[in-house]
Amino acid sequence: MEQIASNLSFDGEHRRYRHRSEVLDCEMEFSVFLPPKAVKNTPQPVPVLYWLSGLTCTDQNFMQKAGAHRRAAQLGMAIVCPDTSPRGVNLPGEDDSYDFGSGAGFYLNATQEPWSRHYRMHDYVVEELPALVEKSLPVSHLRSISGHSMGGHGALVAALRNPGRYASVSAFAPVCHPSECPWGIKAFSGYLGEDREAWAEWDATLLVPGAPEKLQLLIDQGTADDFLSEQLHPETLADTCEKVHHPVRLRMHRGYDHSYFFIASFIDEHLDHHARALGITGS
Amino acid sequence: MEQIASNLSFDGEHRRYRHRSEVLDCEMEFSVFLPPKAVKNTPQPVPVLYWLSGLTCTDQNFMQKAGAHRRAAQLGMAIVCPDTSPRGVNLPGEDDSYDFGSGAGFYLNATQEPWSRHYRMHDYVVEELPALVEKSLPVSHLRSISGHSMGGHGALVAALRNPGRYASVSAFAPVCHPSECPWGIKAFSGYLGEDREAWAEWDATLLVPGAPEKLQLLIDQGTADDFLSEQLHPETLADTCEKVHHPVRLRMHRGYDHSYFFIASFIDEHLDHHARALGITGS
Repeated sequence: MEQIASNLSFDGEHRRYRHRSEVLDCEMEFSVFLPPKAVKNTPQPVPVLYWLSGLTCTDQNFMQKAGAHRRAAQLGMAIVCPDTSPRGVNLPGEDDSYDFGSGAGFYLNATQEPWSRHYRMHDYVVEELPALVEKSLPVSHLRSISGHSMGGHGALVAALRNPGRYASVSAFAPVCHPSECPWGIKAFSGYLGEDREAWAEWDATLLVPGAPEKLQLLIDQGTADDFLSEQLHPETLADTCEKVHHPVRLRMHRGYDHSYFFIASFIDEHLDHHARALGITGS
Repeated sequence: MEQIASNLSFDGEHRRYRHRSEVLDCEMEFSVFLPPKAVKNTPQPVPVLYWLSGLTCTDQNFMQKAGAHRRAAQLGMAIVCPDTSPRGVNLPGEDDSYDFGSGAGFYLNATQEPWSRHYRMHDYVVEELPALVEKSLPVSHLRSISGHSMGGHGALVAALRNPGRYASVSAFAPVCHPSECPWGIKAFSGYLGEDREAWAEWDATLLVPGAPEKLQLLIDQGTADDFLSEQLHPETLADTCEKVHHPVRLRMHRGYDHSYFFIASFIDEHLDHHARALGITGS
């Protein structure tokens, strides 16, 4: 793991790393914010919030645009942002569209050729990257997870599929039911094939009824989001949660859109939500 | 003036506008953040902080990366970000380097051909844009000014040359003495010609001794800034201020660099500084 950048930020440190991923069989980069507590002379291990970004993003969008460092520094919480797909693997068609292939890994494990060798973002984000981070950086084994749009769905699925792994989960404007929206149908068809039974393992709304752990799903959604009606379907997920008594908190925010201005406006509340679950209360 | 984008942000509004600038003789775009107070049903006029960005930036960098909306929303302060040069004027050599021409207008009024027709960013930023903003948006005539790097210098010069126009001025990592640094020598030679006497009117360090108004200069500078020793020279400006009893507050921040992570870390303190001068105390 090679450090490729470092910036002081709110008396903590923003860093970027490059490393070889065995799971993805390629070189990957990720970003981390370490709060002051974790970088002072006698560093104390801090819990980690994993943030999964949306279509076309890299590990950098959230770090630069969400305004999250201020509150994370106060709380004593690290944030880790992985990239949104394998990189540099040169698969045919990988760069042909914004919503499939590079920048659009959908945080699942592909089963179809030629994607199955590299496109295993679920295992990378849930297992390999945390193991690397927890071995190499001053962090504890306490984890929470959040994300935006495609990454919001990735966070929900990571939590629903892996009971006990995360103290809390939240999402901004997540794709909620990918089996029934254009982004999801395109991604699932390509990565998982046409058998819809295989899709159910990777669809948050379809995973909720069988989820062994009743972790509350905190979801913020803007009403002026251009993707809301066609792609996101939060009400379908919330209806399913209510039916099976899975705790969900869906907050509709009048007038907010799909941008990072929306995320920045409510990120502190999400960090506080995760901090409570992680047992930290800030400096 | 045509609105080209709008996003809700912290219950205020981020907007982008396009308009015809008479001073620059071209179409320009700018960004504005309006706090909740200015966009509710009965809007109240709010004071404006003008932010001048650095080399290669547009009107968008600060809005997306500085994390300033949160505190500006609380304080009831608007923020206006102009672009960093005239655009689309197709002058020969305009796009040849990152530190001259487009994206590098240096907030002065050029006197040399072919630049003098369009490159009049001082008059645009100090006069034409505020007049337009104050005519068209729910803002008062109270103004402060700040900026980063080239734009930090632009803010200092705007305040020093225009007594009574700004309630307060501040800068992050400003170019402080452009007559004696490579960025400044290149810009001043090109825009103002080789006569160094003409440069003195546009150099903050050389303007301080004759400044009729003793407005405090608040300057934040990181010690790990790659441009500090060759381009910025804050100590030269501070020495001059002390010699002529011009109030200056230069704060050196150990380990911080030239990036927006540095700006984000201290922007709230600058907004509070300006709010005090503007007579607002927040919600």
